[in-house]
Amino acid sequence: MAKKYNFSAGPAILTAEVIKEAAEAVSNWQESGLSILEVSHRGPAFVAVLEEAMALTKELLSLPENYKVLFLTGGASSQFYMTAMNLLDSNGKAGYVDTGAWSKKAIKEANHFGPVQVLATSEDKNYSYVPKNYDIPTDISYLHLTSNNTIFGTEMHQLPDTSLPLVCDMSSNIFSRPIDIERYGLIYAGAQKNMGPAGTTLVIVNEDLLGKVDRKIPTMLDYSTHIKKDSSFNTPPVFPIFVSMLTMRWVKKMGGVEAMAKHNQEKAAIVYDEIDRNSLFKGAAAKEDRSLMNVTFVATQEGLDKDFLAACEAAGCVGLKGHRSVGGFRASIYNAMTIEGVKTLASVMQAFEKAKG
Amino acid sequence: MAKKYNFSAGPAILTAEVIKEAAEAVSNWQESGLSILEVSHRGPAFVAVLEEAMALTKELLSLPENYKVLFLTGGASSQFYMTAMNLLDSNGKAGYVDTGAWSKKAIKEANHFGPVQVLATSEDKNYSYVPKNYDIPTDISYLHLTSNNTIFGTEMHQLPDTSLPLVCDMSSNIFSRPIDIERYGLIYAGAQKNMGPAGTTLVIVNEDLLGKVDRKIPTMLDYSTHIKKDSSFNTPPVFPIFVSMLTMRWVKKMGGVEAMAKHNQEKAAIVYDEIDRNSLFKGAAAKEDRSLMNVTFVATQEGLDKDFLAACEAAGCVGLKGHRSVGGFRASIYNAMTIEGVKTLASVMQAFEKAKG
Repeated sequence: MAKKYNFSAGPAILTAEVIKEAAEAVSNWQESGLSILEVSHRGPAFVAVLEEAMALTKELLSLPENYKVLFLTGGASSQFYMTAMNLLDSNGKAGYVDTGAWSKKAIKEANHFGPVQVLATSEDKNYSYVPKNYDIPTDISYLHLTSNNTIFGTEMHQLPDTSLPLVCDMSSNIFSRPIDIERYGLIYAGAQKNMGPAGTTLVIVNEDLLGKVDRKIPTMLDYSTHIKKDSSFNTPPVFPIFVSMLTMRWVKKMGGVEAMAKHNQEKAAIVYDEIDRNSLFKGAAAKEDRSLMNVTFVATQEGLDKDFLAACEAAGCVGLKGHRSVGGFRASIYNAMTIEGVKTLASVMQAFEKAKG
Repeated sequence: MAKKYNFSAGPAILTAEVIKEAAEAVSNWQESGLSILEVSHRGPAFVAVLEEAMALTKELLSLPENYKVLFLTGGASSQFYMTAMNLLDSNGKAGYVDTGAWSKKAIKEANHFGPVQVLATSEDKNYSYVPKNYDIPTDISYLHLTSNNTIFGTEMHQLPDTSLPLVCDMSSNIFSRPIDIERYGLIYAGAQKNMGPAGTTLVIVNEDLLGKVDRKIPTMLDYSTHIKKDSSFNTPPVFPIFVSMLTMRWVKKMGGVEAMAKHNQEKAAIVYDEIDRNSLFKGAAAKEDRSLMNVTFVATQEGLDKDFLAACEAAGCVGLKGHRSVGGFRASIYNAMTIEGVKTLASVMQAFEKAKG
C-alpha cells in the first residue's frame, strides 16, 4: 500500500513509532501476558505511566512547582464550563477574546457561571485574523484566549499586554512550541490534535487560583479533587493517557518543544510558500496570524476543489478538505507531520498548477 | 509465557479475539494505511463504528424506541451528578438505596441538586447484603439503585416493587444478563468492567424523562445535547468506543445476554461451590445476594492471604487481591472470563487446602 500522509484536523496524525508501541501494548503489554486495555489503573505499571506523563508535561513545558498537571476526559468542550465553574465567581467578571467557533462556545458556557465580557472579536472578517490592541479591564478574574484556531487557521503569535492570569485553550498547538508559563493561570487541551488520541484532556493549572469561588462544585468537576488524587480519583482513560505519554516521550527525544517549534516553522514555510507562489491557491488567514498547525487555503478559481482533493488522495495526502466555515482546503501539520509529508503536498500543488495551467 | 487469567475488578479482562482486532486496528485500520487512533471521528469509518455500537446496545438489551444510547466520558463518577442534574428538580425529591461505596458517592453528588432520601442501607453489616422490603415513597422522581457492588460482591437479583422509574448504576454487570428495560428510566455504566476498556461511559436514557428540571445545564452536561448529536457533539473517545463495539459484537456472537447469563451462572457456581466446600475459605457476602460478577471471599485462618495470592499468581491467576474495605480476595469473573479460568482458580484453591491441611 502507498504511504499515507494524514493531514486531518483531529483526531490527527501520530508518529509511526508511537503507533507501533501502542499496538504492541494492546497485544501484550511489557511482556506481561496482558493487554494494556485490561490492567488495573491502580497497578504499579499504569501508575508509572501516569507519573511519567505528568513528569514529561512538567519537563517539556518547564512548569513551576505550583502548576499541577491533570489528565481528565470530556475534551476542551468540558473545559469551557469547568474553567468558569472553578475560576469565575458569580460576583466576579471574566474577559474573553473571540477568535472563532471554539472561543464562542467557551464564552457561551462561561456565561452559566458569571458575567463574561467579550473584549474583542474577529467575527467581522470570518475569523481570518487575530484581534490585537484591545482594552483589557483590570477588574476581571482572568482573560480567556484560544491560542490556535483549528477551523480558521489562525494562531496567536503574541500574547496580549496584561498581567492578569490567562486561561488558554491550547488544544491544537500544545507542545508545538515553548510557552511563557508564568503568564498562564490555566491551560487546557484535548489530546487528539498534537498530543495523542481522542479520549483524554490535559489541564495545567496554577493551584494558587483555586478555591476562590463561592459555589458548591460536584466532586468530579472540582480541579482540586483531581489534583489531590493525581488524576485517579476515578478510573482515568488508561489507553489515551498511555499513547499521550508515548507521544511526549517522542517530543522529548526529538529535542523538546524548542526543536518542535523549529520543525513546525520549517514545515509551515514549505506549505505557505507554495500557496503564495501558486496561482491556483491563496491563503485564507491574514499573513501575520497564520497558524503553524492548520494551514487554511482556497482555490483562486471556481470548480477546482474536487479535482485537487482527488490529486492529493492519489499522492497519499488525506484529510485535506476544508471545514465548511472556510471552505477550500486545510492542511493540519501538527508535530507528527514530517517534512516529507509537506513536501509531497507542495509537489501535488505544483503538479496541479501545471495540469490546470 | 504461561497463560494469564485476569481476575481484576476493572479495568478488566477482554476476550482474546477483541484484543487481537483492537491491536490490528491500532496498527492499520481496515487496511486504510492509518491507525484508528488518527482518523477523524466525523469520517464514515468511525461513524459506522458508533452507529454499530448504538445498534448493538439496542439489540442486546431490547431497547424500545424512546430509549436513547449515549457514549460519553467521565465514568460512572460523572453520572453520579449528571443523573441528578438532569432528572432531579430542586423542588423534587429522589430516593436512593445505599448498597456500598459507589451508592454512597451517588447520594453525595445528587445532594448538590435536590433533596435525596436514603430509603435503605446495608452499611450496618459492611454492605455484605442487599436491603429488601423497604418503604418507597410515591412522591419521588426516581429511585436510584446500584445493580452490582464491585467492592462488596453483592448483586441485586430482584428489583424492588415499585412503578417509579429506576436510575441504575450497572457499571459492573451491564450485558451480563437480560434486563426488564421498561422498569428503568436511566442506566449508566463505565465501560471498563464488562463492556470495554477505560475511557467511555454508556448511558441509556428514556428521553421522555428529560427536559423537566428548572435549572440551566451546561451544554456538555445535558443529555439532550448528546442525543441530538448522536454522541458526537464534541470528539468522542474513539478507541474506547471501538473496543466496546467489538466486545458487544462478541456478546452477540456468543448468543446475546441470555447466553451470557447462563455462562456467568455456570462460572459463578464453580467458584462459590469451591468456596463453600473448602475449609480454608468463606464467602464475604450473604448467599442470596452473591454477585455473579465479583466473588468476594476471605480465608478462615489468619496469615494465609499472602501465600494464597502467590499460589494464584504461580498458576497465572492475577488480580485476586480483595479491596481494602473487605480484605481477603476478590475474583472478578465478568463476561470475558472463561470456564477454564474459573476452573484453574478452583483447582488452586483445592491444592492450597491440601498443602496447608
